[in-house]
Amino acid sequence: MPENIQVKLASRALGLPSRENWSIESNPLPEVGEGQFLIQHSYVSLDPAMRGWISTAKSYMPPVEIGAVMRAGAVGKVVESKHEGFAVGDYVYGTTGVQQYALSDGKGLFKVQKGMVPLSNYLGVMGMTGFTAYFGLLHVGEPKEGEVVLVSGAAGAVGSVVGQIAKLKGCYVVGVAGGPEKCKYLTEELGFDAAIDYKNENLRAGIKRTCPKGINIYFDNVGGEILDVALSRLRIGARIPLCGGIAHYNATEAIKGPSNYLALIACRAKIQGFLVFDYAKDYGKAALELGQWMAQGKIKTRETIVDGIEAFPDAFQRLFTGDKIGKLVLKVGEE
Amino acid sequence: MPENIQVKLASRALGLPSRENWSIESNPLPEVGEGQFLIQHSYVSLDPAMRGWISTAKSYMPPVEIGAVMRAGAVGKVVESKHEGFAVGDYVYGTTGVQQYALSDGKGLFKVQKGMVPLSNYLGVMGMTGFTAYFGLLHVGEPKEGEVVLVSGAAGAVGSVVGQIAKLKGCYVVGVAGGPEKCKYLTEELGFDAAIDYKNENLRAGIKRTCPKGINIYFDNVGGEILDVALSRLRIGARIPLCGGIAHYNATEAIKGPSNYLALIACRAKIQGFLVFDYAKDYGKAALELGQWMAQGKIKTRETIVDGIEAFPDAFQRLFTGDKIGKLVLKVGEE
Repeated sequence: MPENIQVKLASRALGLPSRENWSIESNPLPEVGEGQFLIQHSYVSLDPAMRGWISTAKSYMPPVEIGAVMRAGAVGKVVESKHEGFAVGDYVYGTTGVQQYALSDGKGLFKVQKGMVPLSNYLGVMGMTGFTAYFGLLHVGEPKEGEVVLVSGAAGAVGSVVGQIAKLKGCYVVGVAGGPEKCKYLTEELGFDAAIDYKNENLRAGIKRTCPKGINIYFDNVGGEILDVALSRLRIGARIPLCGGIAHYNATEAIKGPSNYLALIACRAKIQGFLVFDYAKDYGKAALELGQWMAQGKIKTRETIVDGIEAFPDAFQRLFTGDKIGKLVLKVGEE
Repeated sequence: MPENIQVKLASRALGLPSRENWSIESNPLPEVGEGQFLIQHSYVSLDPAMRGWISTAKSYMPPVEIGAVMRAGAVGKVVESKHEGFAVGDYVYGTTGVQQYALSDGKGLFKVQKGMVPLSNYLGVMGMTGFTAYFGLLHVGEPKEGEVVLVSGAAGAVGSVVGQIAKLKGCYVVGVAGGPEKCKYLTEELGFDAAIDYKNENLRAGIKRTCPKGINIYFDNVGGEILDVALSRLRIGARIPLCGGIAHYNATEAIKGPSNYLALIACRAKIQGFLVFDYAKDYGKAALELGQWMAQGKIKTRETIVDGIEAFPDAFQRLFTGDKIGKLVLKVGEE
């Protein structure tokens, strides 16, 4: 009999979560009741936002409870079904957790098409990650041809898609990433106009060098010093879609807010937070357009796939240490 | 022969400007050339934004040069004219400086009507101050009936008008001000629903008490701790029109940015800076509507009028010490 290996939250972390904050258990497969089906997960998504889900700070979702399976997006195959909408062999995406099998009643799940793109892409460019980039840039950022777009976390899952969509919209695109390999990836593989290696170049100098006339859109995945410097280089009417603050997610002290925020007045600029879930009714449109761009080779994607559900605790840390390129995915079963 | 007493910037201030940063000079009246006219000022405007104008930090206007007449809005009467658009006896508003007389070619000046409202109101509710409140609240804040609006600097020139317009739009309005007299003014005279005396009540407790269900619009004149607490109490889709940061204008160290800014993500909220000048083409509409509300007694206004141009250095400090109610105005000549 197959077992279901699950990663549960063992305790709340102060700072970067470590192995002790998780427990890995093997449990019998759940029984499938009427109106339910069983999914065998192929890939589990690893996203910086998951750090917020294990914190008790008030947010847009209740926190994961201690002892519960860790919340995560996942993609897999229906292997048993007593649900008339989902048949054995269907592939589905859902927030079905860090485990090898998940029971579902279909609520909040989407069927995905295997074969069009690699299955793991439904956790990346063809899933929440890509949609986050798509809606954050297009709806909050509202890029116009010829504008200067700065992206932080640019070699990451969201940032890399943001930059490529901005290029498709005719913008001049600059990415901030850590290390020469990532910067080369941005300019040589993804077509960014310029890159700033924040580990080897002073940020202020780098932004001045690459955006001499200032910034129209700063797509912020990171926060911290980059946000502060970007604020000091805004053009009139600039927009800052606020997608995340990776630099702050494991903070053990009060977050240092952006000291240059008053520049928003002189520049008539805005910082606007958003969540991809608010655009759920338009996911289909985003998937269609992103899929077309992928098929035409206009959007490229790279994944860092870590093998084995037991690797979750270490892989999770790589979201914050920067030790990965593109979308980080955990392979937990066969396709 | 009358002389023209002028206040000039003598040196840049570190922190709150004091008497030594200004020089007060008496000079002969300028000669009126072809296409020019001479204004005798009645009132000079005192606004927190003027602190920014004497700083060399990059902003929306070049800084006032050392030795130049201090930039300020003023209202007065044309006393001599060789300009066909402006006749002796006309009353005008313009950014014509802290002086008793100003020479103008008419550029950027507006004629105002004496007798409708007190002449000094054209520096307050019927001028840039009122327009700032009007456009900041209505265009950036976009209040909807039943929403909760929090205003800082609420007993000040802008805040008091913001709160009253928000009431007219059917909102629940809470003001933050310093001291029981100002708070009483808000609730008993201006019709605010509640007030928080930040000098005598913990801000967090006060905001929780008055906005138990959270804040839809926080109109920020002040920055500092109020902005941070407000960020932690936002409702979904909240808007923060960023009008000013009086708490920071005399900072001698790096500004402490809002540490709770990541709440903008969970709340899908925005902080948006604006400048009244961008709405110049709609000043007429604002003046008409504000004038009607005034005439109907729906918007009330109070001014703190300081007498004599020599009082400028001390009066200027009162913008930041909070020692005034409503609009602060300097009377520099007869009407």
